[in-house]
Amino acid sequence: MDNRSIGVFDSGLGGLTAAKEIMKLFPNESIVYFGDTGRVPYGTRSKDTIIKYTHGDIRFLLSHNVKMIVIACGTASSAALPHIREDYDVPIYGVVDAAVYEAVRVTKNKKIGIIGTSATIRSGAYTKYIKEYDSRMQTFEHACPLFVPLVENGHFDTKVTELLIEEYLSDIRDAGVDTLILGCTHYPLLAGAISRFMGSDVTLISPGGEVAKFLRKKLTDELRHDDIPDKNQYKFFVSDSIEQFEELGSIFLEKTIDGQVSKIDIEKY
Amino acid sequence: MDNRSIGVFDSGLGGLTAAKEIMKLFPNESIVYFGDTGRVPYGTRSKDTIIKYTHGDIRFLLSHNVKMIVIACGTASSAALPHIREDYDVPIYGVVDAAVYEAVRVTKNKKIGIIGTSATIRSGAYTKYIKEYDSRMQTFEHACPLFVPLVENGHFDTKVTELLIEEYLSDIRDAGVDTLILGCTHYPLLAGAISRFMGSDVTLISPGGEVAKFLRKKLTDELRHDDIPDKNQYKFFVSDSIEQFEELGSIFLEKTIDGQVSKIDIEKY
Repeated sequence: MDNRSIGVFDSGLGGLTAAKEIMKLFPNESIVYFGDTGRVPYGTRSKDTIIKYTHGDIRFLLSHNVKMIVIACGTASSAALPHIREDYDVPIYGVVDAAVYEAVRVTKNKKIGIIGTSATIRSGAYTKYIKEYDSRMQTFEHACPLFVPLVENGHFDTKVTELLIEEYLSDIRDAGVDTLILGCTHYPLLAGAISRFMGSDVTLISPGGEVAKFLRKKLTDELRHDDIPDKNQYKFFVSDSIEQFEELGSIFLEKTIDGQVSKIDIEKY
Repeated sequence: MDNRSIGVFDSGLGGLTAAKEIMKLFPNESIVYFGDTGRVPYGTRSKDTIIKYTHGDIRFLLSHNVKMIVIACGTASSAALPHIREDYDVPIYGVVDAAVYEAVRVTKNKKIGIIGTSATIRSGAYTKYIKEYDSRMQTFEHACPLFVPLVENGHFDTKVTELLIEEYLSDIRDAGVDTLILGCTHYPLLAGAISRFMGSDVTLISPGGEVAKFLRKKLTDELRHDDIPDKNQYKFFVSDSIEQFEELGSIFLEKTIDGQVSKIDIEKY
């Protein structure tokens, strides 16, 4: 059995939803989590900068001797991962892989909507992978650049949120999709309002939640499937304030992480 | 005459409004501008991180042998400058100095409103400096964390903008201020909608525009006041995509800067 940790990173906090699912499905696995809170957000940056930051994040996790890396950031998974996967010896999985796997499985009418940050939509990664699975699939994409700031400022279900959902999602709804990928780890926090707008017959796919299930399907050998935790360890690192991450992170994970978070200088990696 | 350049930096593009005014009032001065587009925004980060980034930005400008530095970023001016001014030999001026100077001059009822990023409001810098000028002044502050993303996504005067102005500014309006400092270089782009909400008798102060006037008042000797440009030079540096900065920067400056922008690795400074 490989006792090394699983490395997980995100541009910030949102990837903790993926970490939480991994903890649940693989209770014996140790996790090293990095949230790049000093350089968040990634979704507004150029492809080159996202690739540069992603390399740094991976090098940091490798310095902790992880056995595999999960990119829990929708932007890094779509805009950077396809370009850098071959550069490393450890396996690297992104939320795009997981979300596409699930979306293709659940759609009946083969019409899939995808929303994400500007960089994610610009990358075209979702459509590319979906069509690799099945070229008859139709995809409908829209960038939602104001969703991340909305979530970070507590606008989960306000009139402002409603107006922006209408602005971003009308075309996708009118196209008649039966499946919608929420291609950014922040978006599930808007799921209630999005679902009301899209209608209850549209399935929402949350990549953070799918990635752990995806690992369980794909990795029958590499991961420990026994479900009695013995001595797993969870370590959290950030590139900005520890206090803020502890406070919000405990909400995301539904358990306290006080005292388990360290600050690092990611620019050195 | 000191022929060295004036250094100007901002977390991104917004500081170009200050650069533009400096170009106008001091046509003989050369300018080195740095926009930290790879790490923008500053306004959501912790004080420690803002101070660290500000040091890097200053060290970069000093590597270009500037004679003085203008911090055109409201967040860096308020959250970092008070803590680092003494660390450098060149004079450093921030937009807070300039905006306070003007606000105190124009208010009649001594009630001044201040809006800015979360970090700016948390710093309390505006209120502190205003009360240093005149302890009888009353200030009313409110963070407006969604204004920067709104501006960056073209929501200058939409229903969404209106709702958020109401959310953020109602208390300040009800307090009866006659002067409102728009404490972030992005906010002047919302001035039309803000002014409609506040009423035409409230004077809006745009720090980016004030900083050049402030320099002219303060620096009677250090800067060239002759107004026939001879061989000034403008250089622009960014930490993310050149193309995007050229495109938007030309709009801010109302003249093309194509071919004058270089990308640097700010993490090395």
